[in-house]
Amino acid sequence: MVARTEEFVRREVLPLDDEHDGDVEAAGGDALRTRLQAAAAAEGLLTPHGPVEYGGLGLSMTERAPVFEAAGRSLFGPAALNINAPDEGNHHLLAHVATEAQRERYLRPLVSGRHRSAFAMTEPSPGAGADPGALATRAEPVDGGWRINGRKAFITGADGADTFIIMARTSGEPGESGGATMFLTPGDVEGLVVERHLRTMDRSMIGGHCVVTFTDVFVPEDDVLGAVDEGFRYAQVRLGPARMTHVMRWTGAAQRAHETAVRYAADRQAFGGRLADLGMAQQLIADNEIDLAATRALLREACAELDAGGRASKATSIAKTFAAEALCRVADRSVQLCGGLGVAADLPVAKIARELRPFRIYDGPSEVHRWSLARRAVRELT
Amino acid sequence: MVARTEEFVRREVLPLDDEHDGDVEAAGGDALRTRLQAAAAAEGLLTPHGPVEYGGLGLSMTERAPVFEAAGRSLFGPAALNINAPDEGNHHLLAHVATEAQRERYLRPLVSGRHRSAFAMTEPSPGAGADPGALATRAEPVDGGWRINGRKAFITGADGADTFIIMARTSGEPGESGGATMFLTPGDVEGLVVERHLRTMDRSMIGGHCVVTFTDVFVPEDDVLGAVDEGFRYAQVRLGPARMTHVMRWTGAAQRAHETAVRYAADRQAFGGRLADLGMAQQLIADNEIDLAATRALLREACAELDAGGRASKATSIAKTFAAEALCRVADRSVQLCGGLGVAADLPVAKIARELRPFRIYDGPSEVHRWSLARRAVRELT
Amino acid sequence: MVARTEEFVRREVLPLDDEHDGDVEAAGGDALRTRLQAAAAAEGLLTPHGPVEYGGLGLSMTERAPVFEAAGRSLFGPAALNINAPDEGNHHLLAHVATEAQRERYLRPLVSGRHRSAFAMTEPSPGAGADPGALATRAEPVDGGWRINGRKAFITGADGADTFIIMARTSGEPGESGGATMFLTPGDVEGLVVERHLRTMDRSMIGGHCVVTFTDVFVPEDDVLGAVDEGFRYAQVRLGPARMTHVMRWTGAAQRAHETAVRYAADRQAFGGRLADLGMAQQLIADNEIDLAATRALLREACAELDAGGRASKATSIAKTFAAEALCRVADRSVQLCGGLGVAADLPVAKIARELRPFRIYDGPSEVHRWSLARRAVRELT
Amino acid sequence: MVARTEEFVRREVLPLDDEHDGDVEAAGGDALRTRLQAAAAAEGLLTPHGPVEYGGLGLSMTERAPVFEAAGRSLFGPAALNINAPDEGNHHLLAHVATEAQRERYLRPLVSGRHRSAFAMTEPSPGAGADPGALATRAEPVDGGWRINGRKAFITGADGADTFIIMARTSGEPGESGGATMFLTPGDVEGLVVERHLRTMDRSMIGGHCVVTFTDVFVPEDDVLGAVDEGFRYAQVRLGPARMTHVMRWTGAAQRAHETAVRYAADRQAFGGRLADLGMAQQLIADNEIDLAATRALLREACAELDAGGRASKATSIAKTFAAEALCRVADRSVQLCGGLGVAADLPVAKIARELRPFRIYDGPSEVHRWSLARRAVRELT
Repeated sequence: MVARTEEFVRREVLPLDDEHDGDVEAAGGDALRTRLQAAAAAEGLLTPHGPVEYGGLGLSMTERAPVFEAAGRSLFGPAALNINAPDEGNHHLLAHVATEAQRERYLRPLVSGRHRSAFAMTEPSPGAGADPGALATRAEPVDGGWRINGRKAFITGADGADTFIIMARTSGEPGESGGATMFLTPGDVEGLVVERHLRTMDRSMIGGHCVVTFTDVFVPEDDVLGAVDEGFRYAQVRLGPARMTHVMRWTGAAQRAHETAVRYAADRQAFGGRLADLGMAQQLIADNEIDLAATRALLREACAELDAGGRASKATSIAKTFAAEALCRVADRSVQLCGGLGVAADLPVAKIARELRPFRIYDGPSEVHRWSLARRAVRELT
Repeated sequence: MVARTEEFVRREVLPLDDEHDGDVEAAGGDALRTRLQAAAAAEGLLTPHGPVEYGGLGLSMTERAPVFEAAGRSLFGPAALNINAPDEGNHHLLAHVATEAQRERYLRPLVSGRHRSAFAMTEPSPGAGADPGALATRAEPVDGGWRINGRKAFITGADGADTFIIMARTSGEPGESGGATMFLTPGDVEGLVVERHLRTMDRSMIGGHCVVTFTDVFVPEDDVLGAVDEGFRYAQVRLGPARMTHVMRWTGAAQRAHETAVRYAADRQAFGGRLADLGMAQQLIADNEIDLAATRALLREACAELDAGGRASKATSIAKTFAAEALCRVADRSVQLCGGLGVAADLPVAKIARELRPFRIYDGPSEVHRWSLARRAVRELT
Repeated sequence: MVARTEEFVRREVLPLDDEHDGDVEAAGGDALRTRLQAAAAAEGLLTPHGPVEYGGLGLSMTERAPVFEAAGRSLFGPAALNINAPDEGNHHLLAHVATEAQRERYLRPLVSGRHRSAFAMTEPSPGAGADPGALATRAEPVDGGWRINGRKAFITGADGADTFIIMARTSGEPGESGGATMFLTPGDVEGLVVERHLRTMDRSMIGGHCVVTFTDVFVPEDDVLGAVDEGFRYAQVRLGPARMTHVMRWTGAAQRAHETAVRYAADRQAFGGRLADLGMAQQLIADNEIDLAATRALLREACAELDAGGRASKATSIAKTFAAEALCRVADRSVQLCGGLGVAADLPVAKIARELRPFRIYDGPSEVHRWSLARRAVRELT
Repeated sequence: MVARTEEFVRREVLPLDDEHDGDVEAAGGDALRTRLQAAAAAEGLLTPHGPVEYGGLGLSMTERAPVFEAAGRSLFGPAALNINAPDEGNHHLLAHVATEAQRERYLRPLVSGRHRSAFAMTEPSPGAGADPGALATRAEPVDGGWRINGRKAFITGADGADTFIIMARTSGEPGESGGATMFLTPGDVEGLVVERHLRTMDRSMIGGHCVVTFTDVFVPEDDVLGAVDEGFRYAQVRLGPARMTHVMRWTGAAQRAHETAVRYAADRQAFGGRLADLGMAQQLIADNEIDLAATRALLREACAELDAGGRASKATSIAKTFAAEALCRVADRSVQLCGGLGVAADLPVAKIARELRPFRIYDGPSEVHRWSLARRAVRELT
């Protein structure tokens, strides 16, 4: 399946990706996604991580790692296979927390690719961000359900999303650690407005990263996801695996940048020989190999721990933090190896560097992961 | 003058820069430049480095450093003051090498901003790049002058340039170190075609980075710049100061990213306090301060050496290499400090990171500078 | 067994190690080793990697990793368990290459700890070093065996070694890649002189790192180890596992430095709180956690590959290079966290930093590994 | 004078330094110092920074920088010229704060080298360390003077010091920022006991780094240094220049390590050529050149600011922090370049790496400087 995914991505996806320099909206956005997902489905590659009973292929974390990496070689590959953030994490969350009725209504069309989803947690300052406890969006109980008011930012894929999972405060005050609840809602619910796209450096996410407001959005009782006030706990369920699938996809992108750079260096003549034979170029190449190997080794360990039923919060935190930084270094070295062409769209390295950079911030900035790792170490060792 | 430049840039230039996320063509390209240069001229800020007899303000390297840095706070600032690459380096080259007639014809309108210029040296592989000796474009003597044939790449500002300085081989073969000559020509000369823009990650250079072909371009004898076969030597004349003015401009941009990030961190509340009071944020801020200080210290030493009449090839090589890497780190830390907004166009940090990255490649990749520094060290110490 | 090893090391070994600041000769040298090995044998912990038929415990690479790490917590732990370099690698080599008679004579007393061994490969400049092909020591065929002449440097454990494995050139010239043969000899053979100890920064290796000369050393035919001219191939057999057991041992030392630093930071009050609660200290702690986790992840992958019968030359090269650098960083950060006490013998961090540093050079400098990794990448990707 | 210092150090000091691997006590301690200082005095090189009226040469900060660097090439050079810490900083402090009588009694014999001094500020946890406000040693007013009780740690040069400057709390409580006073006392005063030497990794400081206790040490009113309760302010007077002279001396040591490594790399053959011609070696060499140049550039700026009468606390903090880290990198790269010999006493690089490491902790750990730099940046930019 890894080989088939690689072949599919090379044949169907990469040409479009490279033609449009990784700008997914320029390449067609949702229309492109629909077309590519149909092709992936035809080859039996769609939603490989999804629950079998809802139409997915049921791959474990360990099994999906190389498949997701193969898809990630193209910036559009994850969309083509329906394994992109935030959908893939939402699939996981719904499979674990949603009622059967919710799964039928919301999960099934997501797994088939008919629907696309968003996860509305982060907020503009001073709301929830790296510190989720700052959650300020509120849901108040009303007759037959809840009424949500608040403002979210960096909501990936919001523009055009068919389904939203909204995190809102049902008790306590911003700054307190509990009191959050998750709500499901269709994207066309009244009161939900996509205000604007944040113009971020990355351009490969369909639906962008948006500011979204909820004004008296009504969610019926049946669409509460899991138990009231347990939202932060469910966020943890989603978090660990979602971090790792990010790593899988980005490893594929970084690997492609690396291969591009190695081939460039093997072709390019400079100073009387091949660029690839110069020691400083060799150092860049070797450091890429080391960073990629360490990323995959940490990833595999975290996946094994998750597959064994663990929360793996330390292992995923380490793997995510290391990977985000290591893969950015890989992309940066690849740019450097390619010289002038490395900063141009002629080669697929500048765009990969551009898309990777936010990963050191999204899904928890490295600093927050380090803070958490240090506190855990002090707790465990003293 | 530094204060006036800062004020001018803040008032006239930054708003346009931020509105267009640093994309100079989107902001108006040459029309924008013309308008801004008129405003700069009105305030006595135009071409501060230019020879006084041709209308410039005659600042020494040491004097121009803080002025260029102030201009560099905006990505459009150098264009506004007519101190941008490649013009600024071309002004210097013409002032030192051109005949009086050439200076009247070519330098005067450049200093006044009426003209814009390009410097056509680098070529597509396997031609001149990091290794200038690979120069493949040829100039053959013909009746009354020279006929130039060849292809250039990464020619900054080529699209719309009124004046080109072309480096072409007049003797020897690619791979040999001598044999280059510089030629002056108007941009509308027959046979000179701007093939395409390279779609680079940076977007603040008017006229872009282009592929240019010369097909039987005729240059009369009077437009040979300096002596035949001495082109590489003149390139050295241009090189040292041009490296340093790059550093000056980019220091301004990095300083702005830093200030933006510090202010953001001082405002942003997280984990029960100001982001700016968290140790890891303080480390990012302090490292920025150190990198900026070391960049300026190395720059000032190199400028003093240049002003004293030295070639300063070691000092400028060190300052360029250190600065390119240090300023990229400053921009990257600034992005990280601003979290999600750091990768969005809401704050002027992502764009500065994007514009700075190529500086580690342009004007000699860091690796080539290191190679040269190491060989010099071995030569001097053994 | 891991727990028993930890407990044994804590009880029997660490007090002596700390009392003597890791200086093994000051602590007793071979007498200390004999005493500690007797204690380890009494607890069933001696030579855990050794072949069962020769008295070892037969642990696979994967199994021995945590045991060696536990032993490595003390700088004297590997000697106590008879798992130290170069013995441990020599055990492996003899088990794979020696004849039964050689194993009885040379391997059995090594496994029991009665003997100690040296591996005489590296030579003073311009002989074999990072580049083994420069091998200059010669063995000439004589009646009944071979006569060896040459000079070796950095021969670990040479002073007092009962057994030497000598690598000498039996054909070809220095600079050529083949032509080496391995020879077994008792340490008291005529003509073998330990000239001097190199005064290295590390002080935990019994027998030191020595310069050794061979003057007409006679080795009978029966003591040729393996086939003539196949020495470089056997060196490869020894190399991969030996690199990994180095990593295991040093991971234990670095882990101890890290734990020491974390506990210090949790105790030490500064600036109105615990040092461990300051962000920059947390960053050092978290980076240690990440480096240790990545080291172990790469190690486990390489061990699994070796246990499966592979050469694992890429995996062991990556793991060794990453580990050597990462563990040095861990030790350095631990020093920094402990402030003044970090550079004093009051805490066991300065000595661990001192002992670790050479690991980036021994067993192939990082640069040589990178060179090899880069060439492999170019070969595989182009 | 720079040339004469270099020559003197090369001829008189380096041979002893190298013979004893930088261990100053092994080389003779105070007897060595007395002999070398007599030689330095004979060549007019003694105490070049000392006030002319007390027998020094009166060099400004800018003037002394290259002289101190030349002396620092040997680990014993600063002792030979009487420019070592803590004496040199104490000379400065006494020149600025002491009464004329105190200068006659205490400063004059220090400048001539007849006496040696210590500066007793830092204390064992939880006392004064990186956070001076934690000062716990107390001085109580008694008839005719003060009675001091407390315990100090890391008191450089304490063993055998003729003169102590003691920082003790005369008002307030540990944790408060003011309330410290400085006291002068002969080293043989009753109640002053040098408890033990801390066994630190560095071994080039005469008198070691000691734990010292004061039990009812009496200091007459005349030996109060400056005004009561102004001790922290005077510490600042001492601090800035003392940081910079540290940088000067260590730059000399790092420069020597670098030169040693470059020469080694130019001699050593490997892989069919000179080590110095391999790209990764060139990168190490070039990075050393860059780090040394940036260190000197920052140093010169701070010295100019100090010579102009400024406190230069930002400039000296940046220069100290950058230099400590950069020079450690230089030493580490030099070790790596020299391979096995780099970790042995055969070459003077391992010892320089060992001596340099504590500089990232002594005189304020890098983290404390960064904390201070960040707070200043936030204050100035917001």
